[in-house]
Order: sequence, then C-alpha cells, then structure tokens
Amino acid sequence: MRIGELARRSGVSIPTIKYYLREGLLPPGAATAPNQASYGEEHLHRLRLIRALLDVGGLTVAAAREVLAAVDEPGIGQHELLGVAHRATEQSARRGSGDAAAHARAEAESFVRTRGWLVQPDAPALDRLAEVIAAWRALGQEDLMACLDGYARAAEVIAQQEVDTVLAQGDRAAMVEAVVIGTVLGEAALIALRRLAQEDASARRAGLTPSARDA
Amino acid sequence: MRIGELARRSGVSIPTIKYYLREGLLPPGAATAPNQASYGEEHLHRLRLIRALLDVGGLTVAAAREVLAAVDEPGIGQHELLGVAHRATEQSARRGSGDAAAHARAEAESFVRTRGWLVQPDAPALDRLAEVIAAWRALGQEDLMACLDGYARAAEVIAQQEVDTVLAQGDRAAMVEAVVIGTVLGEAALIALRRLAQEDASARRAGLTPSARDA
Repeated sequence: MRIGELARRSGVSIPTIKYYLREGLLPPGAATAPNQASYGEEHLHRLRLIRALLDVGGLTVAAAREVLAAVDEPGIGQHELLGVAHRATEQSARRGSGDAAAHARAEAESFVRTRGWLVQPDAPALDRLAEVIAAWRALGQEDLMACLDGYARAAEVIAQQEVDTVLAQGDRAAMVEAVVIGTVLGEAALIALRRLAQEDASARRAGLTPSARDA
Repeated sequence: MRIGELARRSGVSIPTIKYYLREGLLPPGAATAPNQASYGEEHLHRLRLIRALLDVGGLTVAAAREVLAAVDEPGIGQHELLGVAHRATEQSARRGSGDAAAHARAEAESFVRTRGWLVQPDAPALDRLAEVIAAWRALGQEDLMACLDGYARAAEVIAQQEVDTVLAQGDRAAMVEAVVIGTVLGEAALIALRRLAQEDASARRAGLTPSARDA
C-alpha cells in the first residue's frame, strides 16, 4: 500500500509516519519509484506497536527506538530482551550520594537478597527502590516501609504469571513483542488497577456504599 | 534559619529554592528585613517532600503544586486527597475515539464492575486501563489479558494494606502526607519490585542459578 493508505488504516498522519521513518522506528517501505515506496501489513502492525509504546507506555522516542531495535535483533533471547526493555524504560533513577543514600541502597539490596531473587546488582530498579526508601526515611514515613513486603509478594505472583504467559506464545515474533508489550503496557495496567483498588478501599473506609454512590 | 543554611541542610541550591518559592511549592519564610527571610524546620521538611515528588515520583512542577495545595488545605479528607493525588499524577490518558476504543472502555468498566469496586466513572485510571486493553487487542496480544485478573487480585491486597497503613498514622499532618507519598512513591516501589521479580522469574526460566551468576 502507499503511505496514504497506511496513514488512513493506522490513524497515524503522513508527517508522523515520515518522522518515524526518519527516526528509525519504522523500517522503510520497498521503493517502487523515485520518492515512492510500498508498505505492507508488517508496517501497519509496527505502527500500532510504536503508538502503544509511545502513547500508552509513555516511552520517549529514543527509548522506543532502543526497544524496537532489540525486537528486530534475530535470535535475541527472552531474558536478554527483558533486560533491554527494563533499561530503556527506566527513567533515570540515580544513585544518590551521601550516607543516607548508601544506607538505603544497602537496605534495598538486603531486601532483595532476603527474598532470594536472582537480580543483577546493576538492575536500574534496585536504584529506584533505594531512592524510594531514602525518600520515605527523609520524610519520616518509615511506616510505609511495611508496605514493601506486600508489594514484593504481589510482584512475585504477578511476575511468575507474566513470564508464563509470555513464554506460552507459540510464535517467536509474538513472544518477543509480548515481552516488550507485557513489560511496558502491563505496568500501566497494574498501576491503573492499583489506583482503582485504592479508590475502592478508601471509599469503603470513608463509609461510601454502592447505594450512596448511585444516589 | 537563613536561605543559605536551608540550602546547605536540604542539599537544594539557593536558586532552586527561590524557584520553588516563585512557583508556590514552598511557602515564603518570615520576613526579617527587606529582602531577607527566615525559614524553619517546616521549610526543610517541605523541601524534602518537594524533592521526593519531583525526583522520585517524577511529577511535573504543576502536578506537585496541585498535590501540595491539597496537602495544605485544612480539613481535607483522606478520600478526597487521594482523588487529588490520583488526578494530579495521572499522565494524560485520553479516551480514544472509534469502535475499538469504545469497546475497550466498556470492557474496562465491566472488569471493574465485576470485581465490585466502588470507583467513580470519571476515574482517570479507567481510561488508562481501557487504553492498555485497546492496545493489546490492536497488537493481537489478547493473551496478555489473562494477566489482568492477577493484577487486580494483587491490587486489592496492596490497596487494603496501603489504606490501613495510612490511616494508622496518628497525626493528621503525617496522614495527609502519607496519602501523597504512599500514592506517588509507593507506585515507584511497586514498579521497581515487579521488575526485579520479573528479572528473577525470567532468569530462573532461562536456567540461571545463583551459583552460575556468582561464577
């Protein structure tokens, strides 16, 4: 199909498609004439993937490019791809300096070690966890640390199910995309559901009832 | 204390403190002379809260201002404050147009109704959930929908614990801050732990073992 039809079917404007081509997110079409190219169903699918990563997943163009390059790499393993997806989508957690940051970092490492998790010491999520612990302590909200065990237990159950679901995909291309889509969009879904469940738990504690709400 | 000491004790530079004052994130100090003000411990604490919201929580300055204004509102209820924190920190989930978006939105509403959750129909997280469902369907990754039940069960347990922890704070000011800090930073902690648990689950499925890792 021509770029006009690709735009119509995908709902993405021609200038935006050209931008994705320039940025290397979308592979070029087959040249059919000077300044003319033909696009296939795989371009349509790739456009949907790009939009999901950018719009729903909130990735930057640079992060999406990195993730898509890994998706395109032949023979990349599922575990390696997960690492790429995690690194590309982790927003600049920095290791703080000073005693409080070092203490929080040691606390995060000890927390993960106690649970027996196999994680690389340079996992960006470890720095993120340490940041949160340091912030809670600085604000005198140590009580919130009690929530960490519940988060970790929930995370174990969720992660097991996610990995099983992704590996159950028969087709390799589908599996590779499922790792990326599951990591990025699954996070958005989990956050949304946590917020809805919080609203529900808070409403019940505030004494709201279904009938009061409908009134 | 003078602004210089406030900068030294908080680790936030004087120009940045002045920026927060101009933006209304930090209340002004007590004027002691023309162009001179005195700051107290409450300013130091507020600076830590601002940095946690911006740096760890990833909020924009505008979102942080909205959340802090709610924190400062006398007599605001815990349930109301949760709503402000959710709205201020939800990144522009938009209701899509077209049949697919409408179908996904109906699916998200039905999912929440089936669980019996008390949530407002205009909760931004409902739109976010619908966005994810629409993206999964568009990409042919309906299998990932199987993860939603696990997310929801985990979210219920987490939210119950979070609300209990926040309400257990004796002091009202601490409780108000715990709602905000728990919502924003708890999210960061949960995401980090999900990623670490994913890495662990994926490493085990890939056949890595603790001893192989240490070698």
